[in-house]
Amino acid sequence: MTMRRLLASVLSTVLVGGTVAVVLTQTPSATAERRGQAPIVIGHRGASAHRPEHTLLSYEAAIAMGADYIEPDLVATKDHVLVARHENEISGTTDVAAHPEFADRRTTKTVDGRPVTGWFTEDFTLAELKTLRAKERVPDLRPDNTAFDGLAEIPTFEEVVKLALAHGVGVYPETKHPTYFDSIGLSLEEPLLDVLNRYRVRKAYIQSFETANLRELRGRTRLPLIQLITYGGAPYDWVAAGSTRTYDDMVRPDGLREVATYANGIGVDTRRVVPVDASGATTAPTTLVADAHRRRLDVHVWTVRNENAQLPADYRLGDPASPVFPRATGNVMGWLSRLIELGIDGAFCDDPAMGRAVVAKRSA
Amino acid sequence: MTMRRLLASVLSTVLVGGTVAVVLTQTPSATAERRGQAPIVIGHRGASAHRPEHTLLSYEAAIAMGADYIEPDLVATKDHVLVARHENEISGTTDVAAHPEFADRRTTKTVDGRPVTGWFTEDFTLAELKTLRAKERVPDLRPDNTAFDGLAEIPTFEEVVKLALAHGVGVYPETKHPTYFDSIGLSLEEPLLDVLNRYRVRKAYIQSFETANLRELRGRTRLPLIQLITYGGAPYDWVAAGSTRTYDDMVRPDGLREVATYANGIGVDTRRVVPVDASGATTAPTTLVADAHRRRLDVHVWTVRNENAQLPADYRLGDPASPVFPRATGNVMGWLSRLIELGIDGAFCDDPAMGRAVVAKRSA
Repeated sequence: MTMRRLLASVLSTVLVGGTVAVVLTQTPSATAERRGQAPIVIGHRGASAHRPEHTLLSYEAAIAMGADYIEPDLVATKDHVLVARHENEISGTTDVAAHPEFADRRTTKTVDGRPVTGWFTEDFTLAELKTLRAKERVPDLRPDNTAFDGLAEIPTFEEVVKLALAHGVGVYPETKHPTYFDSIGLSLEEPLLDVLNRYRVRKAYIQSFETANLRELRGRTRLPLIQLITYGGAPYDWVAAGSTRTYDDMVRPDGLREVATYANGIGVDTRRVVPVDASGATTAPTTLVADAHRRRLDVHVWTVRNENAQLPADYRLGDPASPVFPRATGNVMGWLSRLIELGIDGAFCDDPAMGRAVVAKRSA
Repeated sequence: MTMRRLLASVLSTVLVGGTVAVVLTQTPSATAERRGQAPIVIGHRGASAHRPEHTLLSYEAAIAMGADYIEPDLVATKDHVLVARHENEISGTTDVAAHPEFADRRTTKTVDGRPVTGWFTEDFTLAELKTLRAKERVPDLRPDNTAFDGLAEIPTFEEVVKLALAHGVGVYPETKHPTYFDSIGLSLEEPLLDVLNRYRVRKAYIQSFETANLRELRGRTRLPLIQLITYGGAPYDWVAAGSTRTYDDMVRPDGLREVATYANGIGVDTRRVVPVDASGATTAPTTLVADAHRRRLDVHVWTVRNENAQLPADYRLGDPASPVFPRATGNVMGWLSRLIELGIDGAFCDDPAMGRAVVAKRSA
């Protein structure tokens, strides 16, 4: 433990949380400085409404559409290189199943306590993964994106960073299943920091659904950290450690105070800000945004999507009896506007153009 | 002829054109004042990439997406009310064919010298038209929009204006087939000006592919006028008058000088600014933007669309062999950026969010 980590550890124990994290990290994008600015538009997996997610095609599109940040989910290869995939199991987003030479790598593993069957990035070298081609993950919902199937490689995190730097946008990497990758000797944090440091990345957020790895990163980077929070469930490192605490505890004032000792913001399911009732319609907002801001935590929400199927019921538009109703563009503009009115600091958007348009209109 | 029209007529004959029009009209959005500002985003038929065109649903979406102007094409009903439809023949955009009570109204007419078969707005009262429902015009290209089929009425121009005023955006009406509507005693200009004057509309452009009606309007309104110019062909009023002059003549310096005597800008096919070769790929730009600006004419281009099928060949992306290639989102961001670099003052966009995003990004 370095002196810096020791200091951080002592301070976060002794002092009231929120302020400490900000003082220690001095991130230009941290809450205090951001308040009052336009919310950031995060290109979710690139521009996944228009391109197969987590491809350079998708990231390039997001940049052209005005995303402030592009967002890669990160998993490790056998030779310990970070690549951008939603999950380490890649049968849904690549053509791996059509490669006879890899047929024997199909297997079943336990990831975060759940059995998963398919092909896993950690069983392939980067060179092997580069022989695969990406495909649209949800072709039923986004059939037009299949026009890009087979055209793009799996990008490395380094390639995503280089693209972002070349265009002056930020990166917003998520470490996926850090406890799991630790357990197989392919820890995500070291190669993550290596790339960020090597390219001197200044405009970035690092996000995770777990807590232990964010605490570890807190001692090793000044970049802002975002604690991801789902609607139900608990961080897997808490589960693995036998804790009974959940994300519900994390969003209470005490939980947020603790988050503020190591993170600069929270990245939450929109239902944490605006819950929905049994019919899927929105109800009165929670106090989470104000509670988080009181702890000097930014609030980013996921995921703002155009399609009716992905919107709260009261923001859907069109004829529910139509077979294409789920894919039709609902009132995503109204939905994002409402979230912005509630004070969020950023939104993960599958269609960054729509996100940028709403933000631009509101600040016009 | 009023004194004001007489004065305008004399001035436009005697003096050099461009300046006269600006002096006479004193429009805040005219060229001289606009130069250097961000180009305007015109919601083409609303947000026709996301909703059936020319419906209040489509206009509402365009406004929410940040369009500066919403654009209705205007035709007349039997009782001389202006309604928003792409054409007076309405079988492609409404369910009229499914109404047995109107079966006997199906007919063939000659419009602008061409035979057209179907149902025509001028054969219906507004009350009758209001019993119809709109549907997506190009369901093969925009299948998701069919989720809105049957949900919207044909809106009147007055309804479109009220919507625009309620949201602080402009309107950009096009008079369709003015010579034809004059010939059947349903002149478009009077009801157009009546609505614009009655609601004291200040933020508007009036556009037409013909010239005589723009000259007539020049004497009757201070709102800026836009001469529409196709890639081939000629204004129908010129054709009807036996002239051999064409739009090719209109974009030459002398032609532009003449346009500037009665209009404030031109609305041109993008190929007038960036021609395409036999393969559909873009070639070197013309001098039209500079030529028009020299005459103090704004340049608005149509139509910027997301889909590969609607983009120049070198801005298409994806696998041409894919059955959904025509519908996939191409490099519309790059295409609009190129047009903006060439100095255009506005763009008609089927997806105003994409247009707003590109404009916002460029001015960031």
